Amino acid sequence: MNKKPVNGMRDILPKEMEIRQYVLSVIRKTYQEFGFTEMETPIVESMENLQGKQGGENEKLIFKIMKRGDKFDLSRAQTENDLADSGLRYDLTMPLSRYFANHQTELQKPFKALQIGPVFRAERPQKGRFREFYQCDIDIFGDATNLAETELILAMSTVLSRLGFRHFQIRINDRRILKAMAAFSGLQEDQYDEMFIILDKMDKIGLSGVREELLEMGLTEENADRYLNLFDIIEGKTGTDAVDAMKANLDGKLTDEVAENLKQIFTMVSAASEVPVELIFDPTLVRGMGYYTGPIFEIAVPEFQSAMGGGGRYDEMVGKFVGQSTPACGFSIGFERMISILLENGFTVPGSEKRIAFLMEKGLSPEKTADVLRLAQEERKTGARVLTAVMIKNKKFQKEQLKAEGYEEIREFYERPLEG
Amino acid sequence: MNKKPVNGMRDILPKEMEIRQYVLSVIRKTYQEFGFTEMETPIVESMENLQGKQGGENEKLIFKIMKRGDKFDLSRAQTENDLADSGLRYDLTMPLSRYFANHQTELQKPFKALQIGPVFRAERPQKGRFREFYQCDIDIFGDATNLAETELILAMSTVLSRLGFRHFQIRINDRRILKAMAAFSGLQEDQYDEMFIILDKMDKIGLSGVREELLEMGLTEENADRYLNLFDIIEGKTGTDAVDAMKANLDGKLTDEVAENLKQIFTMVSAASEVPVELIFDPTLVRGMGYYTGPIFEIAVPEFQSAMGGGGRYDEMVGKFVGQSTPACGFSIGFERMISILLENGFTVPGSEKRIAFLMEKGLSPEKTADVLRLAQEERKTGARVLTAVMIKNKKFQKEQLKAEGYEEIREFYERPLEG
Repeated sequence: MNKKPVNGMRDILPKEMEIRQYVLSVIRKTYQEFGFTEMETPIVESMENLQGKQGGENEKLIFKIMKRGDKFDLSRAQTENDLADSGLRYDLTMPLSRYFANHQTELQKPFKALQIGPVFRAERPQKGRFREFYQCDIDIFGDATNLAETELILAMSTVLSRLGFRHFQIRINDRRILKAMAAFSGLQEDQYDEMFIILDKMDKIGLSGVREELLEMGLTEENADRYLNLFDIIEGKTGTDAVDAMKANLDGKLTDEVAENLKQIFTMVSAASEVPVELIFDPTLVRGMGYYTGPIFEIAVPEFQSAMGGGGRYDEMVGKFVGQSTPACGFSIGFERMISILLENGFTVPGSEKRIAFLMEKGLSPEKTADVLRLAQEERKTGARVLTAVMIKNKKFQKEQLKAEGYEEIREFYERPLEG
Repeated sequence: MNKKPVNGMRDILPKEMEIRQYVLSVIRKTYQEFGFTEMETPIVESMENLQGKQGGENEKLIFKIMKRGDKFDLSRAQTENDLADSGLRYDLTMPLSRYFANHQTELQKPFKALQIGPVFRAERPQKGRFREFYQCDIDIFGDATNLAETELILAMSTVLSRLGFRHFQIRINDRRILKAMAAFSGLQEDQYDEMFIILDKMDKIGLSGVREELLEMGLTEENADRYLNLFDIIEGKTGTDAVDAMKANLDGKLTDEVAENLKQIFTMVSAASEVPVELIFDPTLVRGMGYYTGPIFEIAVPEFQSAMGGGGRYDEMVGKFVGQSTPACGFSIGFERMISILLENGFTVPGSEKRIAFLMEKGLSPEKTADVLRLAQEERKTGARVLTAVMIKNKKFQKEQLKAEGYEEIREFYERPLEG
């Protein structure tokens, strides 16, 4: 048998696990204080749902589970899909929307959901990216107002601040602004997605790279420049001023309502946040998933350069499961990225319980052992962690190991009290 | 798209989730106080390991994951296994043994592991049994003494008592006693497993049913009666007396060492337990998994009739992954069973945080909304859960719903203070 984990997945050692559990407890507690309630969906979803065009590129990365029994018919199978009827979820948003559609009569409105769990993507294994990883999502169903976006951003920045992060950047955009900009550049609606995929590469290929690819996809030079000029217009402007400048230059393609909605999010987050946050209107922000319909946002801690999470509004997804759509808005923490930053920076879990080790002589009688175990129970009542173990031959090494694990106090027990 | 979960799996609603999370927090805290440290393995394991003969009947219930890319070759596939190279884990014990084998140089000895997570078995869907369910396991690697069994039992009974259960029955046996009894009845070693499967049905088919099946498998009437008579011998005897009586009647097939080891566990658990436990020597206890090598045990709360968990010693499993075996002993909580008993008995999570709802008039200005959000942040500093929401038309209904969710205090906010 093979002692390694499967390709692209990993075992989690106790030291990292302690940090993960601590971070999860902060996330749970904070989100619960904001009125979110935890729920859970199965790790397995039907292929019908997984391939329902809600997952974008992730639908190419599904781990498919084979049909069983009579349903598994190798002789008639033409393609993979003839042999699989379910698979591992690639995110928590699609399953949550299914869950809301399935249970909406039983749920509080608005429904503020907290979901934590592993998701799976068969990506090419590479450093720091794994095929099984955790997501921590909060979502609000049934609130069409920008109170939803504001609360998601406040809750997430509170989590980051409780974990010791300082100075956040929150980049905000709106899918409808992306569309207005595309329309302004003379594109047809069926070309928008292609343009967004190009725009999404801005941080990698720069303005000139984006221009090149826009020309390749068929934009005239005039239209490409007209489009890219929009980014110049907001240069140096911040927050609501930048939104106003964008709107003024879009020839009426952007409605008052959309611009006003976004500006209100800026105003409310700035005014209500207890921690300093830098709010940036970023018209290059795309966020991959095609299901977004309104505001989209990402939180980054600048000194660590990468996004710590992001989300947006997706008012149409519940409607894919039931006749009627429900306003929905969600935020997903980049949990694995957060943990690796904490690990790289020597994060330690604050205020752990006192640790005591009781080492017992080998061959200690059952009666004496029971005495030691009772004593251990007494110490545990004070909240201490008490490890009991049989002494090994190399007691010095054993004690060193225990000290390294945080067992500062080590007591030894023998059948007879040691002499002098 | 389909709003139902896949066949045999289920969504967990907020009310049950709150209880699950509370129970998990009690389990985590208690086990940590006993010196167990949490770790995690992937949900996916290689087919090689899943079908490595450690899982008994569970190996027939594996959800298999399809190979991907070039490895998936439908044209050459003869059987299911040609198309699958991994699958969902059916328990936590096999993955944990792989983990220990893989990381033993990095782990404290003895290694006391706590693992919590979902496992998967493609059982026929039926009431109360699901294809995805949680297990909570504690295991001790590297302790060959019965201190391991004793601590597992004490830790588990402490968990039960902290969850409000009273009066536990702990049934204990040893695989070596099962073998000695089989040898005493004239069976050859390669027939033992068949006999254990029959014996395991004792509570369903009774003594006479067991006798019948033993005759069917080829035992002479004399040997069958010789075997069944062993259960009469211990009738009315308890604990260590019962073990002694069994040993005295096995014609030397049972060594002093095995009997003494088991009796010491009785002695130590009785003496060290802080809660009343009833210890029963039960020579009909088999526990399904073939990997057990020594003592095996189950904990039951008699008023709820079914086992709340069980475990045993499996000293050979680590050796399947690396050359050398390591003593190992583990205990698994029947988590789903425990949760359904708590739900059926109206369990409520003790001492939850105060819950306050802030309802805001529809169309409240961003400035006023920010004031309310700041006030909510202030209340959260006291540890309260504060839900903010936009008032719906039917405010009375909304408030009733909130009260039902535990929001005792509800405050309303308007753009202008209400008159009168």
